[in-house]
Amino acid sequence: MAADRAYLDHNASAPLLEAARAAMLAALESDGNPSSVHAEGRAARRLVETARRQVAALVGGKADDVVFTSGATEAAATLLTPGWRMGRGPLSVSRLFVTAAEHPCILCGGRFPADSVTVLPVDRNGLVDLTALEAALSAHDPDAGMAMLAIHAANNETGVIQPMAQIGRIARAARALVVVDAVQAAGRIPLDISDGSADFLILSSHKIGGPKGAGAIVGASDLLMPLALVPGGGQEKGHRSGTENVAAIAGFGAAAGEALAGLADMAAVQVVRDRIEAEVRATAPDATIFGEGAPRLPNTTFFDLPGVKAETAQIAFDLAGVALSAGSACSSGRVGPSQVLKAMGHGDQASALRVSIGRSTGDREVSMFTQALRALVSRQARAATRAA
Amino acid sequence: MAADRAYLDHNASAPLLEAARAAMLAALESDGNPSSVHAEGRAARRLVETARRQVAALVGGKADDVVFTSGATEAAATLLTPGWRMGRGPLSVSRLFVTAAEHPCILCGGRFPADSVTVLPVDRNGLVDLTALEAALSAHDPDAGMAMLAIHAANNETGVIQPMAQIGRIARAARALVVVDAVQAAGRIPLDISDGSADFLILSSHKIGGPKGAGAIVGASDLLMPLALVPGGGQEKGHRSGTENVAAIAGFGAAAGEALAGLADMAAVQVVRDRIEAEVRATAPDATIFGEGAPRLPNTTFFDLPGVKAETAQIAFDLAGVALSAGSACSSGRVGPSQVLKAMGHGDQASALRVSIGRSTGDREVSMFTQALRALVSRQARAATRAA
Repeated sequence: MAADRAYLDHNASAPLLEAARAAMLAALESDGNPSSVHAEGRAARRLVETARRQVAALVGGKADDVVFTSGATEAAATLLTPGWRMGRGPLSVSRLFVTAAEHPCILCGGRFPADSVTVLPVDRNGLVDLTALEAALSAHDPDAGMAMLAIHAANNETGVIQPMAQIGRIARAARALVVVDAVQAAGRIPLDISDGSADFLILSSHKIGGPKGAGAIVGASDLLMPLALVPGGGQEKGHRSGTENVAAIAGFGAAAGEALAGLADMAAVQVVRDRIEAEVRATAPDATIFGEGAPRLPNTTFFDLPGVKAETAQIAFDLAGVALSAGSACSSGRVGPSQVLKAMGHGDQASALRVSIGRSTGDREVSMFTQALRALVSRQARAATRAA
Repeated sequence: MAADRAYLDHNASAPLLEAARAAMLAALESDGNPSSVHAEGRAARRLVETARRQVAALVGGKADDVVFTSGATEAAATLLTPGWRMGRGPLSVSRLFVTAAEHPCILCGGRFPADSVTVLPVDRNGLVDLTALEAALSAHDPDAGMAMLAIHAANNETGVIQPMAQIGRIARAARALVVVDAVQAAGRIPLDISDGSADFLILSSHKIGGPKGAGAIVGASDLLMPLALVPGGGQEKGHRSGTENVAAIAGFGAAAGEALAGLADMAAVQVVRDRIEAEVRATAPDATIFGEGAPRLPNTTFFDLPGVKAETAQIAFDLAGVALSAGSACSSGRVGPSQVLKAMGHGDQASALRVSIGRSTGDREVSMFTQALRALVSRQARAATRAA
């Protein structure tokens, strides 16, 4: 990261951890294809399998139940499908339930036809309406096929954490498959797939300090598996073909190891986040901090600055050396109101700024943010005075 | 590459080129998400767009018509689908024609139902039977939907090069879409998508000296595009969602640049390959070199050693420091007869060794191969004498 920049956009892409970079560099020395049986191939294979254990450990899973993908979006497209197998037999999922505050890769429904997707409401804090969830799952006709619930553990924009244990109990009672988008939660709050609240977790390497280009599906078991999205040479036990991205997977594994160890530092990260929020409140007393009535990730804050367009603010911060986001960065070049805020009933304030930080964020970054925020708000106040 | 090893398995995965490594290292300094509008995001975006121009240039295409994927297998799964759009309207492809010598990611038919895939024969050199191709395409009923032909430009095991210009003419006459798996041909023979013989080319980074984890679809235009395999945030103009694998894409771009320049060196590569083949003939006069009656890639030779099991030979070579392949490395841990040889009518000799080299292969590697081959064949001769 450049010394004159404050990178506060970890939820879009976290800076590459040194351990991940080192693992990648070592892997780039490895010429082999992990499917080759010669020494070079076996060396590449070992790197992939080490990473598999590291990624499994981050979420309390078994290495055997990890399928590496090119990222979380591909993982979602793989899992969100009507076509499954239980052992050797086919199994059909007839309806997908998602919340209105999901990432686009979940909200789009993957391989489900649009009319097989039910979108559930969230409240003004972004929490799923548990009563609506229970009613929707109970109304599902199991004779048509299984139900699947796909839901984020924590929101990419607000950081709001869903009550996964309660959601898991409701889904289990309704015999629904549960796919949890744990992309933003991983490495920020503890996750344990063995606790029974989810059948599958989706993880992304570059949100936890690994490189872009790797993600994973972690299953609670391998009893049920979706029909492959990417068929071919039969890699990943046939669940995902294509030569493994050895360097990115090795980096992902190293980052997962760091993320697991780093959970202990998250209270300190929250202190920094809370300082940033205190500064927002002090500088812009009428700012709304979205989702603050709910449990949130320790690294994320999402707020509006009344009277300032988010895009304008983002550019001003950028010019002042501060990288933050107006909504999420998931859609190439798209500028528009946040779908998450709309889902939360804040459509009128549908323009907000996200600050997302990590363990590397310290005084320097907070100070740069503070200066940029104060300058922006005082410019805005002067402009309002002149206009009056 | 270790100094005591001779890596002769470039068709499984080519060693990372120094230019590709350098481009990746530079890209790993870039924290941003290419979809973010701040300076870090824009820097990442520039890396992706530079690579797009480099990859397009390798095959005479336009940067706008390049879609990056996680690899060739995903590219094949994206293109091999009944569901397409022409502009804004839907378009249906009702039948896929492939040859029996395709890579598994093509032979599996992608998203086509199994009964919509027609497998065409190849001759004993592995060349598609043009009469059978023409007859099959003519017999297709266009009222049911378009026909698609998916065929490799050069075979991954034998290096045999298909007559793409003739195939293109036959396909155009039948109004079939042509998808060319150019994974092994790229960087080894000139490719030009503007010559009208193909509608789409599939490329893989790690077969041309880039990193594993990146591939591309290059279209002759963007008039016709398949429905996205991986939907979500809308990256790659909606054709392939998910945060771009910036480092791998940057490495792919650099490798494409080198591969284009390196085409001039392919005559020298062929001289080395021909030395290896001369040694095979001298040491094992009854060896068959598969596909030698057809045009072949300058870097590939695929041969059997009568009386020696390919797996045994591969292990002996590996112990002697020589990495080569028994068939392709596309299927994790699979050991079995080569599907390509079966398709070529050599099912009785369905066990063979592939040597695939590159511009970095020189005297040292040839010498190590030669010594290992001679030792293997003389051990085999002694064993045969004892048994007699």
